[in-house]
Amino acid sequence: MSGGARELTVDLGERSYPIYIGTGLLAELGRKFTDRGFSVKSPVMLVTDSAVEGLYASKAEESLRASGYTVTRAVVPSGEASKSLERLDVLVEEALKAGLDRKSVVIALGGGVVGDLAGFLAASFMRGVKFVQIPTTILAHDSSVGGKVAVNHRLAKNIIGAFHQPEFVLYDLDTLASLPLREVRAGLSEVVKHGLIWEEAFVDWCEENAEQLLSLAPDALGYALYEGCKVKSIVVSRDEKENDLRAILNLGHTIGHALEAVAGYGELLHGEAIAIGMVGSARLAARFGYSPDIAERTERIFRKFGLPVRIPDSCATENVMSAMLHDKKFTEGKMVFVVPTAIGSVEIRSDVSSEWVKEIVDGLREGKS
Amino acid sequence: MSGGARELTVDLGERSYPIYIGTGLLAELGRKFTDRGFSVKSPVMLVTDSAVEGLYASKAEESLRASGYTVTRAVVPSGEASKSLERLDVLVEEALKAGLDRKSVVIALGGGVVGDLAGFLAASFMRGVKFVQIPTTILAHDSSVGGKVAVNHRLAKNIIGAFHQPEFVLYDLDTLASLPLREVRAGLSEVVKHGLIWEEAFVDWCEENAEQLLSLAPDALGYALYEGCKVKSIVVSRDEKENDLRAILNLGHTIGHALEAVAGYGELLHGEAIAIGMVGSARLAARFGYSPDIAERTERIFRKFGLPVRIPDSCATENVMSAMLHDKKFTEGKMVFVVPTAIGSVEIRSDVSSEWVKEIVDGLREGKS
Ligand SMILES: NC(=O)c1ccc[n+]([C@@H]2O[C@H](COP(=O)([O-])OP(=O)(O)OC[C@H]3O[C@@H](n4cnc5c(N)ncnc54)[C@H](O)[C@@H]3O)[C@@H](O)[C@H]2O)c1
Ligand SMILES: NC(=O)c1ccc[n+]([C@@H]2O[C@H](COP(=O)([O-])OP(=O)(O)OC[C@H]3O[C@@H](n4cnc5c(N)ncnc54)[C@H](O)[C@@H]3O)[C@@H](O)[C@H]2O)c1
Ligand SMILES: [Zn+2]
Ligand SMILES: [Zn+2]
Repeated sequence: MSGGARELTVDLGERSYPIYIGTGLLAELGRKFTDRGFSVKSPVMLVTDSAVEGLYASKAEESLRASGYTVTRAVVPSGEASKSLERLDVLVEEALKAGLDRKSVVIALGGGVVGDLAGFLAASFMRGVKFVQIPTTILAHDSSVGGKVAVNHRLAKNIIGAFHQPEFVLYDLDTLASLPLREVRAGLSEVVKHGLIWEEAFVDWCEENAEQLLSLAPDALGYALYEGCKVKSIVVSRDEKENDLRAILNLGHTIGHALEAVAGYGELLHGEAIAIGMVGSARLAARFGYSPDIAERTERIFRKFGLPVRIPDSCATENVMSAMLHDKKFTEGKMVFVVPTAIGSVEIRSDVSSEWVKEIVDGLREGKS
Repeated sequence: MSGGARELTVDLGERSYPIYIGTGLLAELGRKFTDRGFSVKSPVMLVTDSAVEGLYASKAEESLRASGYTVTRAVVPSGEASKSLERLDVLVEEALKAGLDRKSVVIALGGGVVGDLAGFLAASFMRGVKFVQIPTTILAHDSSVGGKVAVNHRLAKNIIGAFHQPEFVLYDLDTLASLPLREVRAGLSEVVKHGLIWEEAFVDWCEENAEQLLSLAPDALGYALYEGCKVKSIVVSRDEKENDLRAILNLGHTIGHALEAVAGYGELLHGEAIAIGMVGSARLAARFGYSPDIAERTERIFRKFGLPVRIPDSCATENVMSAMLHDKKFTEGKMVFVVPTAIGSVEIRSDVSSEWVKEIVDGLREGKS
């Protein structure tokens, strides 16, 4: 293990797994496979996207080959559109041609798109093979932990999926250096979210270290990703299948997903959309009698990270509302929202009136306070 | 519960579930939903095929509606081709349009095709919703129990799937009356298989009662399906995810699947293909020094049920062999076979030479003994 690497465990009984966070970790991939006793006789499939392939795929493969593994590379186009059944079909074909068997491992090398897609492949190929996550975006500190994997349907995001936990998560901070700044900001949005739902002190720290984080200073970044992954793991360990607690991770996501859908995927990045959504949820908190300071503080933090906090004009309120009513988080027709009660803690409310939500969406416009 | 109904439990801890076998059960579907506390607020989706729809869908739906449930019907074309990602995509669209939510139940009303497809829909829609099996073929006594669900890829059968156990299995013997005789025979092939792997006395009974079974005499049929489901449940309870024991259920399937693939799906029915496969496995047993009587007896039984015991000329040996080498049961390149050691017991051998298999496939021709 390289110097300064951090390690965490997602505690899920016999499905527990480690998260390694540090620099220089890609070169240790093969060794990690050997340590776990993965068979060298079964081919490994590395799934990556067209933007990441040229940067890091060879390094990962070399490490595996040096440890005796046979690796096949499968490259999907960069972008959300790859999270589809059509792409899954192509990957299954590649897996069959490469001779993958039940002892094979599927690796996701990339951001959340590659993680979700390769994860669903691993969950369903031969009814489930081993899976390893190598996140290469900041946002993927969230998506790579917790086992939610999925593809989209043209009518709904993440609607076809599974819970399939990885064998381990290998987070090599070096890979983040090539991330476009906009992706850095968007990823930090989920990091801050983990603070907002769980730990005020971490929110304070994020605000104080915003510049360091935006410039990818390794120490600050390693700490932030460690803390973000830690919150995520604690929550997932207590409620793997989202029966109750896990839903708090959806802070800002009800409005956020609707905005992504209405803006058209790719227009607003996921992290951008949920930053706006978190401001909306904080305003909802004030309606329930919690301090208006929560909304003010939430907005200030996201502004500091250069994230949007207002709904773009392209998203008409009625479209946002109707997208929300299609969201799978609405069980039996009621509106359910994660609402902050203070910075660092939230509650899940199932009594949210759609009128209030509409007013908040309406109010979250440029020019309105 | 109607008179004479039989009940069994698949013992899987908190995922345990009952199998009801008897006549007049379709009319009790709604009551079973109510007994289980399924929410009437969440829409139910009944998946069936074009051959079954006109016969039994209304009856099932009426029972549900009488108990207060909202039901949407989704009909897929009859036949193996419906087990595809494309069809899954269509069903997801229908589920979304019907407003299914996380508390909804997906029902499979049909044979193994509908069960496997609707089961994979239930496993993956919103990362998993409740599932109920209403088998309407004899073969589906096998496919409806045990939680294996899947769709096909054009290069491999059942390659994309999950383990997703139903909430219960409702086997209404009345629905079997409309089954074409060829389907009856093919279904009985799996019933006999359950005897061959587990219980000699049941094999004896099947042989003695072949005519009764072929004419669908309710008492004999109920008993046979109960015994078949019983063997399947015992095996699945001990090894849900097919780590070891469950593989014995694949008796005859290695050759059988290859024959299905080479003949072209639909040419040879699944039950027909595995009848031939079981004769092949019994011949393999003789190579390992077990009694040649096993093969003779196996062949005699299947002939009595009017099932094929020879490979059709359309399936060239080399094509059968190459199809087998693509089978997902071959871990790390070795040939693994379920081999009978006597009538009513089998062993799993991983040391089967492909030469022997080739000779047996070659010998299983009309005109050869
Ligand atoms: N499974 C979960 O629990 C979960 C949680 C949150 C988000 N998600 C999913 O994650 C996805 C978003 O993840 P994302 O933001 O990582 O998107 P992404 O995977 O599309 O990556 C963002 C962009 O950065 C590029 N990229 C990735 N790594 C790079 C690198 N190191 N250098 C340069 N470019 C790089 C990608 O090609 C892409 O263009 C969404 O589909 C969302 O639904 C899933
Ligand atoms: N999941 C498992 O564990 C498992 C086990 C064995 C087989 N299978 C799968 O099951 C499938 C085969 O099942 P099957 O033989 O039931 O095929 P099937 O579902 O195609 O049914 C056979 C035919 O009978 C028709 N039919 C069904 N019920 C009828 C009824 N009551 N009256 C008249 N016609 C009726 C169907 O429309 C179809 O044409 C295969 O896809 C196989 O892979 C799965
Ligand atoms: Zn998110
Ligand atoms: Zn079978």
